[in-house]
Amino acid sequence: MALPKRSEDYSAWYNELVKQADLAENSSVRGCMVIKPYGYSIWEKMQADLDRRFKETGHVNAYFPLFIPKSFLSKEAQHVEGFAKECAVVTHYRLKNAEDGSGVVVDPAAKLEEELIVRPTSETVIWSTYKNWIQSYRDLPLLVNQWANVVRWEMRTRLFLRTTEFLWQEGHTAHATKQEAIVETELMLDVYADFAENILALPVIKGIKTANERFAGAEETYCIEALMQDGKALQAGTSHFLGQNFAKAFEVKYAKKEGGLEYVWGTSWGVSTRLMGALIMAHSDDQGLVLPPRLAPIQVVIVPIYKKEEELEAINEKALVWVKELRAKGITVKYDNDDKYTPGYKFADYELRGIPVRIAIGPRDMQNGTVEIARRDTREKSTVESGQLTVLIPQLLEEIQQNIYNKALKFREESTYKVNSLQEFKEVIDQKGGFALAHWDGTSETEEKIKAETKATIRCIPMDSVLETGVCIFSGKPSKQRVLFALAY
Amino acid sequence: MALPKRSEDYSAWYNELVKQADLAENSSVRGCMVIKPYGYSIWEKMQADLDRRFKETGHVNAYFPLFIPKSFLSKEAQHVEGFAKECAVVTHYRLKNAEDGSGVVVDPAAKLEEELIVRPTSETVIWSTYKNWIQSYRDLPLLVNQWANVVRWEMRTRLFLRTTEFLWQEGHTAHATKQEAIVETELMLDVYADFAENILALPVIKGIKTANERFAGAEETYCIEALMQDGKALQAGTSHFLGQNFAKAFEVKYAKKEGGLEYVWGTSWGVSTRLMGALIMAHSDDQGLVLPPRLAPIQVVIVPIYKKEEELEAINEKALVWVKELRAKGITVKYDNDDKYTPGYKFADYELRGIPVRIAIGPRDMQNGTVEIARRDTREKSTVESGQLTVLIPQLLEEIQQNIYNKALKFREESTYKVNSLQEFKEVIDQKGGFALAHWDGTSETEEKIKAETKATIRCIPMDSVLETGVCIFSGKPSKQRVLFALAY
Repeated sequence: MALPKRSEDYSAWYNELVKQADLAENSSVRGCMVIKPYGYSIWEKMQADLDRRFKETGHVNAYFPLFIPKSFLSKEAQHVEGFAKECAVVTHYRLKNAEDGSGVVVDPAAKLEEELIVRPTSETVIWSTYKNWIQSYRDLPLLVNQWANVVRWEMRTRLFLRTTEFLWQEGHTAHATKQEAIVETELMLDVYADFAENILALPVIKGIKTANERFAGAEETYCIEALMQDGKALQAGTSHFLGQNFAKAFEVKYAKKEGGLEYVWGTSWGVSTRLMGALIMAHSDDQGLVLPPRLAPIQVVIVPIYKKEEELEAINEKALVWVKELRAKGITVKYDNDDKYTPGYKFADYELRGIPVRIAIGPRDMQNGTVEIARRDTREKSTVESGQLTVLIPQLLEEIQQNIYNKALKFREESTYKVNSLQEFKEVIDQKGGFALAHWDGTSETEEKIKAETKATIRCIPMDSVLETGVCIFSGKPSKQRVLFALAY
Repeated sequence: MALPKRSEDYSAWYNELVKQADLAENSSVRGCMVIKPYGYSIWEKMQADLDRRFKETGHVNAYFPLFIPKSFLSKEAQHVEGFAKECAVVTHYRLKNAEDGSGVVVDPAAKLEEELIVRPTSETVIWSTYKNWIQSYRDLPLLVNQWANVVRWEMRTRLFLRTTEFLWQEGHTAHATKQEAIVETELMLDVYADFAENILALPVIKGIKTANERFAGAEETYCIEALMQDGKALQAGTSHFLGQNFAKAFEVKYAKKEGGLEYVWGTSWGVSTRLMGALIMAHSDDQGLVLPPRLAPIQVVIVPIYKKEEELEAINEKALVWVKELRAKGITVKYDNDDKYTPGYKFADYELRGIPVRIAIGPRDMQNGTVEIARRDTREKSTVESGQLTVLIPQLLEEIQQNIYNKALKFREESTYKVNSLQEFKEVIDQKGGFALAHWDGTSETEEKIKAETKATIRCIPMDSVLETGVCIFSGKPSKQRVLFALAY
């Protein structure tokens, strides 16, 4: 079934693409998704690359409990405000047979003394553990990450972008000094930005959140923001400088080298399966998914075209040699000579699934010593000598990776506007779509009024922005620099 | 602090070892553990090896929801009996500020219409999904695995061995025929057995569970059973042939190639962080953990011994060459020239953590061109020419892997007794410890009476056992083969 067109119904296009490309689907539990094997194999590639980067920067993995005692949430005043409102609460630990034989019911005798919260994020349970792990400066820095599922009770959910349960990694580090913790926060933001740009082919803007958009319990939230094809922004990752907030909430002090006790400084940082949504929305087209080669579970597919069995046999022989040669170069190749589907069906299916390169070979190609190569990103086809495949394909994959990034970057640049009045601002937000770089007076009050009037939010204060005096587009008060506004997912 | 001795208090030895070697600890949530970085790094090695084996046998990973609607559990009659009694139940989705300002309380307005169960295992939620994935024989077999956390509300918990939340993988497959499903069930048992023996160095007995010990909802449960050093058995993995039970419960039918609809045949199989407990209990000694080299996050540690700074500098130079050479051979090496701890402290610490090989080098060794090698399994030391390291170390690691396995196998063989009377049976169970191979009349009634009288259970009906007529040690009734009894974790 053809996908809806992006230009006609972007939202329906996204939903259908996620389903038809076998990435994910809604489950029978409201707001929780099933990540299907093909979607999960892309997530696994993201995980592997991120995990390697975390380890290279000195982090180790660990695992902390799914459940958080209710009282823990209240220990950090802002944190509880941010998270307690949307939690799955475990109140009982047993079911029993219903007396009327209608199934099972909650056993009222098995009520927990203190309710447990399914973690929406793990700062509280981790800092309550760090209290025992940290005594002296020798125990610092503590650089821990966990891969886990978390639950936030969302009212409006959307596959990958906002789901009740999602998968993520959360880094939680503890440091002896404020400066070290800030360096860590910025380092991890760089790790995320580099990953997004080089692996996801997704250009991102690094910046700092305003107080309104800050993580509940952080002193400063850093983020990477990406622009989707419909002109809306998507927050792709965050890195928080926690100050001493959680150390104070959980009484985590360390003996300093020079004597005396001090509260520990903390950071936390995370990216989630939401990156799958960013990946899909940033690059895909009306024919389906477009995958950057570095994330594609299958990078190259070879499809034989034949009528007679002898023709297939001859193609099989050739193709299996290419498969071997390409695999030797570290390329993931599938040779699809399954006779249950026609070549036309296969072409459409592999386009839908975003396989970067498709090679087709028929009897005439066999005679001419050629193959037809189709690249997914531009949908261009070309005929090349088959003897050149092992040289051409690695180059082509690199070229596709780069082209997908360049295309997204060009789109973002063309969709980023310096605006100097509320009028111009609204034109961008309401009509053109994209990022509006505008002067803002720095107050939460103005930020909220702009949001109320236009639905746009400040995505971040860009880290590379030039200081430039101006006047706030809304209040007319003085401003020191432009900040980045957009409608957001 | 010295560990308790195994011979004096096996249970205290285990608990202390898990804590002191930094493998895991209890969390503030009853029954839930924190898996510490060192413990988690061993689990990651297990995961990587198992995941590779699953993929090599054609399986793909996916992810299904954490929550299961309460009504799903009731759909398979035996399944609900087995699992509903020990579940974490989510009844609400919001907290609110307490009116007296004392923190947060459950918001009674946010009560779920249907309670959600935190998955104790995922057959129900997965088969409810498979209903949509499977229409025809073309969709089969469906070979899916998931890595996930699960929760079973245990009254008595023990780090790794029995915890309320644990990590595991669960494979769930669907097949067109009974025969294919049975082949899959047995294949995955073989994958587990091979992994246990070759990677964990843990000899296991493959067998079939009696009806009493069968997975709730399975037609047949296959298992691997291992013997711990205290003479108790530990079930290290299970593979279930589900028949058409879940297909019928969730109405999963497929169109056959030859026409007509049939219920699908299923399997499920899993291993968990319990394997960490098996690993520790099977091999470790009074000095600490003993790790098979194939699972050791650090295989070789090099410790310099010196008084003067020049001595250290000379050793550094040598050691860094060895590190490079050994790493080039795929060996994980740590050079520990940290001056915060003495060599004696380091030796004890690395013994506690089970590093397979320790290399020590001091000024005299430097003069003689030698190093001292200590192997963790036998605690033997030897002096060798340092020029031989790159040849000797890989061989030594292989030898240690094999020796750990052989030692465990010898222990198991010496602790397995053919018994022919209840008297002999009790001597094994009460005094000697170990496996008792005994004739049993095949009834659940006798099995339960034996358990009531001796606490021993039938671990399995071994798959390689010879048919041999005899009489049941308890009832005196005829028996066709011996089965494996033991006290169990």
